[in-house]
Amino acid sequence: MKELISKYEEYRKRLKAYHYAMWMISWDSATEAPKGCFGERAKYTGVLSEESYKLQTSSERIDIINKLYAGKDKLDSVLAHEIVEAKKSVDKILKIPMEEYVQYRMLLATSENTWAEAKTKNDFEMFKPSLEEIISYGKKFAKYLETEKLKGYDLLLDDFEPEFTTVEYDEFFGILKKELVPFVKEITSKKLEYNNSFESKTYPRLDQIEFAKYIQKVMCYDTNHGLMKESEHPFTSGVSTKDVRFTVHYYENMFTSSIFSAIHELGHATYNQQIDPELDDTNVGDGASMAMHESQSRFFENIIGRSHKFWEIHYSKLQEIFKEQLKDISLEDFYKSINKVENSLIRVEADELTYPLHIMIRYDIERMILNNEVEVSELPTVWNKMVKEYLGIDVPSVSQGVLQDVHWAGGMFGYFPTYALGSAYAAQIYNKMKQEIDIEKILESGTTKEINEWLKEKIHKYGSTKYPKEILKLATGEDFNPMYYVNYLKDKYSKIYNL
Amino acid sequence: MKELISKYEEYRKRLKAYHYAMWMISWDSATEAPKGCFGERAKYTGVLSEESYKLQTSSERIDIINKLYAGKDKLDSVLAHEIVEAKKSVDKILKIPMEEYVQYRMLLATSENTWAEAKTKNDFEMFKPSLEEIISYGKKFAKYLETEKLKGYDLLLDDFEPEFTTVEYDEFFGILKKELVPFVKEITSKKLEYNNSFESKTYPRLDQIEFAKYIQKVMCYDTNHGLMKESEHPFTSGVSTKDVRFTVHYYENMFTSSIFSAIHELGHATYNQQIDPELDDTNVGDGASMAMHESQSRFFENIIGRSHKFWEIHYSKLQEIFKEQLKDISLEDFYKSINKVENSLIRVEADELTYPLHIMIRYDIERMILNNEVEVSELPTVWNKMVKEYLGIDVPSVSQGVLQDVHWAGGMFGYFPTYALGSAYAAQIYNKMKQEIDIEKILESGTTKEINEWLKEKIHKYGSTKYPKEILKLATGEDFNPMYYVNYLKDKYSKIYNL
Repeated sequence: MKELISKYEEYRKRLKAYHYAMWMISWDSATEAPKGCFGERAKYTGVLSEESYKLQTSSERIDIINKLYAGKDKLDSVLAHEIVEAKKSVDKILKIPMEEYVQYRMLLATSENTWAEAKTKNDFEMFKPSLEEIISYGKKFAKYLETEKLKGYDLLLDDFEPEFTTVEYDEFFGILKKELVPFVKEITSKKLEYNNSFESKTYPRLDQIEFAKYIQKVMCYDTNHGLMKESEHPFTSGVSTKDVRFTVHYYENMFTSSIFSAIHELGHATYNQQIDPELDDTNVGDGASMAMHESQSRFFENIIGRSHKFWEIHYSKLQEIFKEQLKDISLEDFYKSINKVENSLIRVEADELTYPLHIMIRYDIERMILNNEVEVSELPTVWNKMVKEYLGIDVPSVSQGVLQDVHWAGGMFGYFPTYALGSAYAAQIYNKMKQEIDIEKILESGTTKEINEWLKEKIHKYGSTKYPKEILKLATGEDFNPMYYVNYLKDKYSKIYNL
Repeated sequence: MKELISKYEEYRKRLKAYHYAMWMISWDSATEAPKGCFGERAKYTGVLSEESYKLQTSSERIDIINKLYAGKDKLDSVLAHEIVEAKKSVDKILKIPMEEYVQYRMLLATSENTWAEAKTKNDFEMFKPSLEEIISYGKKFAKYLETEKLKGYDLLLDDFEPEFTTVEYDEFFGILKKELVPFVKEITSKKLEYNNSFESKTYPRLDQIEFAKYIQKVMCYDTNHGLMKESEHPFTSGVSTKDVRFTVHYYENMFTSSIFSAIHELGHATYNQQIDPELDDTNVGDGASMAMHESQSRFFENIIGRSHKFWEIHYSKLQEIFKEQLKDISLEDFYKSINKVENSLIRVEADELTYPLHIMIRYDIERMILNNEVEVSELPTVWNKMVKEYLGIDVPSVSQGVLQDVHWAGGMFGYFPTYALGSAYAAQIYNKMKQEIDIEKILESGTTKEINEWLKEKIHKYGSTKYPKEILKLATGEDFNPMYYVNYLKDKYSKIYNL
């Protein structure tokens, strides 16, 4: 057994080295690589993927994993959990014919560009053939991988969030639909009065960077083990607690975008930096799941970062940096502005309250796709109809409709629901946190230090040594309960809108 | 044969992918990686090196190379040249016992830090044990690798500059010693009169970056296939013509440093960007040698970048950016300042004329070391004596003396002489260029476009498909002749100093 473990660890280290290299290259791609390098880059990342894939699927490694899996009761719990996941992953690899998988990867390598061009040109027909192919692979792979318990869309959902399938999501989104759709209608029928003149002003990039750095300090980000940079789309990525990086994008005509991106990404980064460093060399040293990760970013972005208390403490700093632009703007004006609710077209720009409705649309459509209830050619129409139903607005173009998100171009069906689930986890976690520590008092100290510590102890430290459901229960003492989310939203927005 | 070639190319592609990954990681290390990541990083780069090494030394690959080598007369000349070099390199790998090589790499992994600390603390004794070990490995490896023709120091020299050994360098440095040492004495006995008040002013980093970007344009750098950034020590690196990056370091109290670093590194970058792109996928798509590379950087830095004509065109732009600092400074003042000759202690800060004397010191000492004519403990004394002899000054500390350069800590014995040789190549190339194109007129056009084109046609395009001696002869019609260098220096500095 000892020898098996050490062989397994040797493979793991080698695989992690490839992952490290690919991570470094993709960080460069997203942040500063010159445009002309991508053709060549694709060639070499192709080789590295292939080397890594060969290692991953080597019969020796698979054999080791099978043997360790058979004896998993004798392993310590962390390694046992890792082996269960490794076993799942090799089983999956073996079930999909390598050739088809390679073809699929090649399809994805071009489909994102096709999507981007189609979006720019507002031309759904251009993206349609790629999307059809991606969906057909998705269905085929789901077929290869299906088990007694998991089939079709459930399989994809479970892949992004373990133990969450249409059963759980239907219940979750059912509650949201029932509770939030009418609530949003009520809210959006009212107008929030405040001085919004600052929203159309210009906010220089360097000043925004200065404030983003201030936020880093407020959130106790460890710059010795990470760095912040700019990219087209904000993201956080890291390979261990030793190096957790994030990006922000600065729009000079929309300065709150970079503020909330920074807080959001710092939520992700804090999670990664606070995982038990003992897990750095393992494969369970990342976040517990997509939704759990998203719960941390949204907790900080919305629950903390859009709270009144947060800005009571930090608005003066913002005014100091943007003296001219904010000189006549009160804290109340600013607070209302960042919590204004609007039925809007674009998910990534949606406010906290309408955001889950955007996700529901995607969930419903994905399920229809995987259940063969809709043709790709019908997607724009179906999309627009749902937007009208949930958000009450008309979609003027496919760019602002069905083509707005990159996910499907990347084959990521089943990912979207985790965004809403993450917000709901966050609300449940917040409810528990409030009972145990004095959040407002902590915020008054100027940093989120003790909030971070609570999260570390309750959630972060585990990494992915346990499934999210288990961590949520450990942290909150309860199973997942979406009513915390509904109540949090209703409570917050009723106050802001004086309902 | 066809099958052998395609197998060889397959190995090459895989090896280049590892190289690509390592390049990306080291670029990140030099420019922005957070300090706390290096422990983990070393672990993963270790794995990647090992994977690459295993591939490089796989018996299948060696067998392919041996077979191709045996049939090299039937290969096209480019591939034949590459195979000759590959054969040399595998022969070398096979002659050094793997275990010793690994120990040596591990030694080097720590010795640079030890050196840096010793330099900071001005403590030669601290670095001595590492240096002794490195030298002992160097000698041992030279012993393993020696042939009838190449032994000891010659072997190391030839490794950095093919077909240059002590025979050639003795002649070269003999001429420099005879011609330049007395000339420098004469020059430095005179004082260059000019308004030097601007040398002690402050030059903001952002303004320096603006001028460096201007220089990029002047030198026609292709930003679609490269980028400029900041690092502690300026360097250029790339993996093909598709991505050639360089760095500059900005000192606010020494603004000409970034200007000439930028021009120097852009000389390297221009070389790499102008290699025949057909060579991108090969192993002969880099510069022809260390000295040939250095000839291009020094050609641009010194011959072009410190010429009167260059600043006739660009000084107004410099004055525009540094309005306050340069408002009373004439072009003549500036020109004298950047061409002032001084006997100084630090190689990297030395002027164009005294620079080769710094190299001669290192060459003499390296030869003594490899010939067992000096103990490591005696190095500081020997060093100081030579500085006195060549430059006429006293060395106040080991930090400013024998510990100033990193090269020996990296095991790079035989590297230094290429710096001086590069300058001499540059002068010989310049001499030919002058006969074929009107350099001053080209500079008047505002960019170096046609100079770049001449260099591309005569030197760059070949990459390393030929040895530097051959390229030099093709470009200039002559064998290497150091008198062009001597004459260029004497001519230029006699004028500046009114001899």
